[in-house]
Amino acid sequence: MSLLSPGSHRVAALFSDEALVAAMLRVEVAWSAALADTGIASTAQAAAVARAAATGAITPDSLAAATESAGNPVTPLVSALRAAVGDSAAAALVHRGLTSQDVLDTALILLARTALDRLSAELRSSGRALARLARAHRDTVMAGRTLGRYAVPITAGLKAAQWLAGIRDALGPIEAARAGLPVQCGGAAGTLALLGELTPDPPATVAAFARRLDLADPGLPWHTRRTPITTIGHTVVTACDALGVLAADVLALSRPEVNEIREGSAPGRGGSSTMPHKRNPVLSVLVRSAALRAPQLGAQLHLAAAEAVDERPDGAWHAEWEALRGLLALATTAAAQAAELTAGLEVDTESIASHVADAAPDLLAERGAPGDPATYTGSAGAFVDHVLTRWAATESEETP
Amino acid sequence: MSLLSPGSHRVAALFSDEALVAAMLRVEVAWSAALADTGIASTAQAAAVARAAATGAITPDSLAAATESAGNPVTPLVSALRAAVGDSAAAALVHRGLTSQDVLDTALILLARTALDRLSAELRSSGRALARLARAHRDTVMAGRTLGRYAVPITAGLKAAQWLAGIRDALGPIEAARAGLPVQCGGAAGTLALLGELTPDPPATVAAFARRLDLADPGLPWHTRRTPITTIGHTVVTACDALGVLAADVLALSRPEVNEIREGSAPGRGGSSTMPHKRNPVLSVLVRSAALRAPQLGAQLHLAAAEAVDERPDGAWHAEWEALRGLLALATTAAAQAAELTAGLEVDTESIASHVADAAPDLLAERGAPGDPATYTGSAGAFVDHVLTRWAATESEETP
Amino acid sequence: MSLLSPGSHRVAALFSDEALVAAMLRVEVAWSAALADTGIASTAQAAAVARAAATGAITPDSLAAATESAGNPVTPLVSALRAAVGDSAAAALVHRGLTSQDVLDTALILLARTALDRLSAELRSSGRALARLARAHRDTVMAGRTLGRYAVPITAGLKAAQWLAGIRDALGPIEAARAGLPVQCGGAAGTLALLGELTPDPPATVAAFARRLDLADPGLPWHTRRTPITTIGHTVVTACDALGVLAADVLALSRPEVNEIREGSAPGRGGSSTMPHKRNPVLSVLVRSAALRAPQLGAQLHLAAAEAVDERPDGAWHAEWEALRGLLALATTAAAQAAELTAGLEVDTESIASHVADAAPDLLAERGAPGDPATYTGSAGAFVDHVLTRWAATESEETP
Amino acid sequence: MSLLSPGSHRVAALFSDEALVAAMLRVEVAWSAALADTGIASTAQAAAVARAAATGAITPDSLAAATESAGNPVTPLVSALRAAVGDSAAAALVHRGLTSQDVLDTALILLARTALDRLSAELRSSGRALARLARAHRDTVMAGRTLGRYAVPITAGLKAAQWLAGIRDALGPIEAARAGLPVQCGGAAGTLALLGELTPDPPATVAAFARRLDLADPGLPWHTRRTPITTIGHTVVTACDALGVLAADVLALSRPEVNEIREGSAPGRGGSSTMPHKRNPVLSVLVRSAALRAPQLGAQLHLAAAEAVDERPDGAWHAEWEALRGLLALATTAAAQAAELTAGLEVDTESIASHVADAAPDLLAERGAPGDPATYTGSAGAFVDHVLTRWAATESEETP
Repeated sequence: MSLLSPGSHRVAALFSDEALVAAMLRVEVAWSAALADTGIASTAQAAAVARAAATGAITPDSLAAATESAGNPVTPLVSALRAAVGDSAAAALVHRGLTSQDVLDTALILLARTALDRLSAELRSSGRALARLARAHRDTVMAGRTLGRYAVPITAGLKAAQWLAGIRDALGPIEAARAGLPVQCGGAAGTLALLGELTPDPPATVAAFARRLDLADPGLPWHTRRTPITTIGHTVVTACDALGVLAADVLALSRPEVNEIREGSAPGRGGSSTMPHKRNPVLSVLVRSAALRAPQLGAQLHLAAAEAVDERPDGAWHAEWEALRGLLALATTAAAQAAELTAGLEVDTESIASHVADAAPDLLAERGAPGDPATYTGSAGAFVDHVLTRWAATESEETP
Repeated sequence: MSLLSPGSHRVAALFSDEALVAAMLRVEVAWSAALADTGIASTAQAAAVARAAATGAITPDSLAAATESAGNPVTPLVSALRAAVGDSAAAALVHRGLTSQDVLDTALILLARTALDRLSAELRSSGRALARLARAHRDTVMAGRTLGRYAVPITAGLKAAQWLAGIRDALGPIEAARAGLPVQCGGAAGTLALLGELTPDPPATVAAFARRLDLADPGLPWHTRRTPITTIGHTVVTACDALGVLAADVLALSRPEVNEIREGSAPGRGGSSTMPHKRNPVLSVLVRSAALRAPQLGAQLHLAAAEAVDERPDGAWHAEWEALRGLLALATTAAAQAAELTAGLEVDTESIASHVADAAPDLLAERGAPGDPATYTGSAGAFVDHVLTRWAATESEETP
Repeated sequence: MSLLSPGSHRVAALFSDEALVAAMLRVEVAWSAALADTGIASTAQAAAVARAAATGAITPDSLAAATESAGNPVTPLVSALRAAVGDSAAAALVHRGLTSQDVLDTALILLARTALDRLSAELRSSGRALARLARAHRDTVMAGRTLGRYAVPITAGLKAAQWLAGIRDALGPIEAARAGLPVQCGGAAGTLALLGELTPDPPATVAAFARRLDLADPGLPWHTRRTPITTIGHTVVTACDALGVLAADVLALSRPEVNEIREGSAPGRGGSSTMPHKRNPVLSVLVRSAALRAPQLGAQLHLAAAEAVDERPDGAWHAEWEALRGLLALATTAAAQAAELTAGLEVDTESIASHVADAAPDLLAERGAPGDPATYTGSAGAFVDHVLTRWAATESEETP
Repeated sequence: MSLLSPGSHRVAALFSDEALVAAMLRVEVAWSAALADTGIASTAQAAAVARAAATGAITPDSLAAATESAGNPVTPLVSALRAAVGDSAAAALVHRGLTSQDVLDTALILLARTALDRLSAELRSSGRALARLARAHRDTVMAGRTLGRYAVPITAGLKAAQWLAGIRDALGPIEAARAGLPVQCGGAAGTLALLGELTPDPPATVAAFARRLDLADPGLPWHTRRTPITTIGHTVVTACDALGVLAADVLALSRPEVNEIREGSAPGRGGSSTMPHKRNPVLSVLVRSAALRAPQLGAQLHLAAAEAVDERPDGAWHAEWEALRGLLALATTAAAQAAELTAGLEVDTESIASHVADAAPDLLAERGAPGDPATYTGSAGAFVDHVLTRWAATESEETP
């Protein structure tokens, strides 16, 4: 949670250091279970690891200093977990065959899964609200605006439909990415050498590991091939782009001189520290600010990917962690805010109609003949129908 | 072509202003043809437009000043094309129903298609070279390195296989993106209003337009929903990431103290302006520098997407153009250089073996027993086979 | 010149490949002259180099292919220049003691000098226009807007004064950076070793080189210490930030529903390809789009700086060139457009007054008492005076 | 503190939400004191505010939800502080005349001051260590490397001197920025209108406010003119650039095949989770990863600056907060790590000499005559002396 990311308390528990420690422990427990599943460890040993992980004794604070010495939080976590296991044979099996990157990458993938699920749910919620708006205002004629000037007429429904189409564009890749999230499993240098000492069939253990975490088995470590991470990044930034357009539009259309679409109000929302009359469009402002931040975070992931030298890199990997977690928190917060925003959007049909009437000569200039702007909306209605049909198909699909 | 992007002369003709003008003219010609296909224009009129476009009289220089006045190059291009058509009825049909963004977006999509085709071909060429390397060195034991230190052994084949897997990761999305490239067609504010004055069936004209350009019909304008552009961006940056890893590895492994893998030499390549002995790893250096630039260009596309307000935005769209074209040129140049690089890579098995022998104690420290590093390569061979099998499948697929 | 950077034809000749070749030749000529100045070459030899450089035979096209082979354009340029010199003793002195990075860095510094001079002149021009506006509208009461809502009253003069203060903030660092622009001179690995073979006093030759180019002698090569470049980048991006705020404000205030401040019109400017009534705020749109691009280019320079390994780096340096040149062209174009924009800005006092009257209750809500918004403008006038006083001081300073 | 930024626990207390709340309270207390200083409040009232602020009852958690509703943490903090003050007249004076941006901007400036002080101290510490190295190895001949290849000889002292010069380049702007850090004080829309109701001399109160916080009085609000923030950003990123070069060099030179310069060891540092022999160069890796992240954060600040529309912007300001705080934490952590790194650096003169001997033919190729590389180090020694002289001057200056 950060006071400088207003609303981040909504998702803080999902991406906190505590959540990260829990995810890393979950990965280690799954690994012990996979060792047991494939005959390398006993069931009792795996259970001992699971019990040790469940005590809650391993906290972020307890790992902080050693995380710096080791360069990552996994090494101290493994030490602490081994100590907690007690039984020395079981302790020796903790993390056996893995490298720290296997654990941290997989833990971050678990956090990403949570994020993508939440993102998907929030986007679908916004989608439903926008579908209602698009349907309700399919034929509400409205001034189109391009480069900040009156263009030809559109409809309020088309505006909502385009926002909805943006969300739908984002949803597909998010849900596809979520479905393919892989474990990381390569051992010290991506060869599973130590695992190969323990079992004649290393792939079976990797498969069991993936199964235990309900993640995909990628068939090959990706320590230096960061497409799973950059793909997550791209899909999440794409969602922020779509929400950014929505927010920018709401901000433009809710300016007092325009006043065609407004954020709904809620008790206490949008108050000013000094001006009692003010109702700031807080949700739109926060969503827009997230959209202005996401691209740089996505770029950070690509940059790290491009520099992933050797069998595991000397700094590029480390440059990826905070950007990924930060992006997940940013986007899920923004998506939750957008869901609230879209649910409350108010369309001021009177104000819209008044601008249409005033601007009619401009709105019809292209046509070259005066008349009623409502007769010059082209395919707006058909486009709304097209988007709603596609959305209905999306709605009827199960979320993976 | 730019002297500050060495090698850009390879692709300069594909992305120059001349190529852009040609693409915009091709879009206008296709539009006239689509108008004729759907009974809005006569075949003779469409032919007149095609003839006027083919004269070569419309040059970038002739458009430069008016491009600034109009804010984009389409408006002056349309004026020039109309003037060149002569026949006033045919001239009036030029661009009729379109907006400048329809033309420029579609023209940039045509450039992107060329780029993705070239990128795909060059990546496949690198892929073939790397597959040969992976196969040849499947069992060449080599020191693994993590965080710049000796880790456990790998094989030279696994290194090549991981590079190859990176290229394969990139190829799929590139070819998928290429297959779905859409026309842009919405008219002044994304409603096809003017087209609706000309025909009772606007979608038929859009479909004909797409067919004429062999592009997809997206069913909906995307003036402010920039997923087609950000998706191109992401796939192209992903290719640069993969090439960046390859280049960074070659640079690390070809340092004189390591000398395990080297760029092939060519007459005149890698010379120094002052040191006669030098053979700089020029291709790797240039590919790496491209990989260091691509993420920022991709971020630019996302940022523009996130700010696409109104029916067509007041600056965000404009902020996208150079970044897109620059990224296409950068990546195709780098991919061509990488194809040359991979074709010439030299593996110094003697040097590799010597490091393996010297570093044997470190390479086997994880195992905890001395011996031959060749007996501790784990699944390296199986991973090579896995990648080669998948690559064979990719190879057998027709490029879309 | 690029059609995708509308207006770039204004500055194309300053930053083209031709300009770069000319700058590199100027550097080589200055070096020969410096060798002569310090007794290493004869005056006749230096003159022969100058004559050879002046023939115009060395063109970008002639260097393109070899630029890729060498990894930079200097090596082929040196070969061509030596060939053109004819006299073999003089030819051997061309570039003697330098490395390619010395030449390219110094040539880019020359381009940067041109850019900073132009930027400074254009910003001063905008400054003068804004000072006039601030003075003229010192007491024109206007609605203040925060988070897109009415806040307390401001004055139109204060708005102009804040834009002016932004330009003044940018000017100081630009002119300071321009005054300190250094030559690059270190030889092959930054030790001036070869120069030391030619003269007992290498610093004297470096000083002569700097004097010949009217640049600063930095006392130490900066091959891997890129502060001169990142500082240029930061000052230029800062100018774009200031212009971006101006453009964003003009775009917001010139929307038809607000209509308080407008771009001036010019024949042919702002026309639409399909809507005859339209006058798009083209200059503001283009300036804003530049401001949206500059930060990524500045980040590119920092990234390259952070990766400048060894005595001269293997890719990071190369990743800097296009970003620097692109940023210089972008900013000077935008500054020229902003100068035109500010010169033509129209303040619609009637529209401003009408909004103030309508919004009076909101504008006075903080005060908690009804009345005339003109009585609640606080220090607005004093702030305008403060800015104008500071600006007058800036105006009276000679541009360095 | 974040486990994903190893070492961040070193500075966590300086930049945490708790520190932010404390800074905001300090700003409100200083404002009350300034009101008292200028006769607007009584001393008792100011004391009541100070007492209320000191109770520790206002925690980040208590503000989280309302921070989202308000869009920033100041509004709920003011409410809580007023409630805690009790006395209603004193409570009414809390924050009176300010806007939330005044408080948050000033609080972030206080955090930045802490960061710049820490950064300066840590950089000076690294500087001293590097000065010792440069002096000790002024004449230790070493292979120069460019584009990853042997170039001409340098000295180990020159390498250290160039790192030191990089740090000195960064220090000046950091200390200059620190000396000029301004308060933000403009009221609701940057006119000090409400303050003007309370006193005939608003500037006197602003001056008192600045004095109370020991910050500069900027003479003009900078709500939409973000040069103070972007300047902080640039100076901090510049420091990261310098540290990044140092780290990249150490990583390259400490590879086992090179082994010329090494990180010092410390108990527990650099251990691997699976390979017992490993001593990873953890500090260098972490410093390098910071340098790979800083440019994007700096770009974020510029982007926010470029979009600062209206009297206070609708999202751009919000997009700045986390980037600024994150950058401050990142850089101070990296600088502390670099201080430890430089203090412990080990120069392996034997290994250096052995490479010089082996590579002698390459190192002397430019000279064109065989011999001792030690006779071809040019101005290396003079450059070391130059840097050390300048550093001595820097050392003797008081930190501002």
